[in-house]
Amino acid sequence: MSADELKQQRHQARQQRLKEYVDAAVTRANIEKGLLLVITGNGKGKSTAGFGTVARAVGHGLNAAVVQFIKGSWACGERNLLQQHGVEFSVMATGFTWDTQDKAADIEAAERVWQDAERFLADDTLDLVLLDELTYMLSYHYLPLERIEKALMQRPAKQHVVITGRACHRRILELADTVSEIQAVKHAFDAGVKAQQGLDW
Amino acid sequence: MSADELKQQRHQARQQRLKEYVDAAVTRANIEKGLLLVITGNGKGKSTAGFGTVARAVGHGLNAAVVQFIKGSWACGERNLLQQHGVEFSVMATGFTWDTQDKAADIEAAERVWQDAERFLADDTLDLVLLDELTYMLSYHYLPLERIEKALMQRPAKQHVVITGRACHRRILELADTVSEIQAVKHAFDAGVKAQQGLDW
Repeated sequence: MSADELKQQRHQARQQRLKEYVDAAVTRANIEKGLLLVITGNGKGKSTAGFGTVARAVGHGLNAAVVQFIKGSWACGERNLLQQHGVEFSVMATGFTWDTQDKAADIEAAERVWQDAERFLADDTLDLVLLDELTYMLSYHYLPLERIEKALMQRPAKQHVVITGRACHRRILELADTVSEIQAVKHAFDAGVKAQQGLDW
Repeated sequence: MSADELKQQRHQARQQRLKEYVDAAVTRANIEKGLLLVITGNGKGKSTAGFGTVARAVGHGLNAAVVQFIKGSWACGERNLLQQHGVEFSVMATGFTWDTQDKAADIEAAERVWQDAERFLADDTLDLVLLDELTYMLSYHYLPLERIEKALMQRPAKQHVVITGRACHRRILELADTVSEIQAVKHAFDAGVKAQQGLDW
């Protein structure tokens, strides 16, 4: 046997052992249910991963709906695209707290879109609901935790929910099946690069 | 002035100071250029954030192309959706190393799709190129670092590139403008939940 053949034989044996390990793990994972996925942390990519999940679901012919907290007062590439595919959006559209500077109006807007969220979370024709930047509604005390918990826990058994935003409330993390934390290792904005259409919004 | 009015006045003043701080940072960030964004780490959401970025760009009418390393041998919701919007895909489609168990064939497949990547990275009609799971091509030594570096550095000045995958090579991190690291705080798979269409692929 040549050195190359020996190398390939060893590679094949290693990969076969790895395959058995992976297959066993896949076989053990046999539960199917609606998942609560939280994407939190300070890094770039939380909302983008949320919208990517919606794009994925829609690409498989599943039904999805999106609630955008905070954002939505400016153009949004994902919304343009996904609305063409029948994804319903409810948009708070107030912008950041430093733009509105009016807490009572912000709370009213939060309350309004949360009613849509509750409608989506009760709708068993929806396979996926994205609650984009919901976390701030809790950290700002705009919405009561109990109401959010209740709607999440009572949702249809097969419905997936994705929640994005920084500093997610501990109780929501406990409820979640999967939690990803995105950390900013490096950010172009800190090096003086402005937010750009198509990449940043 | 009532207690509520006083509270609102204080909120307004705080938010105004915050706005001045944010506005100053936004004014300082005045560079516009094609960015290299790396999304790495062990958590769920790297590819999804990459595809979300493509969805965002396409939603703004920008042109994007995608190279999928490793994956692509099975159904992919994002691909179904984005191809309808004119996004060109080049797909390695070998599956995981433990599925192929053939290193020479894997390297050949990597080489083949990398040629498409080089074509995309030289095409100034493309606003965004996603190199999904490219990192493994370096950690497995399937592609030479120098070739990847060169193609990234010589690309059109306004072209954005997104690279995803675990354990990104240090040199690529150095070249990157923005690096996000996704950490798995909790993963449903570890609790016995199987990968599900629409959420996991």
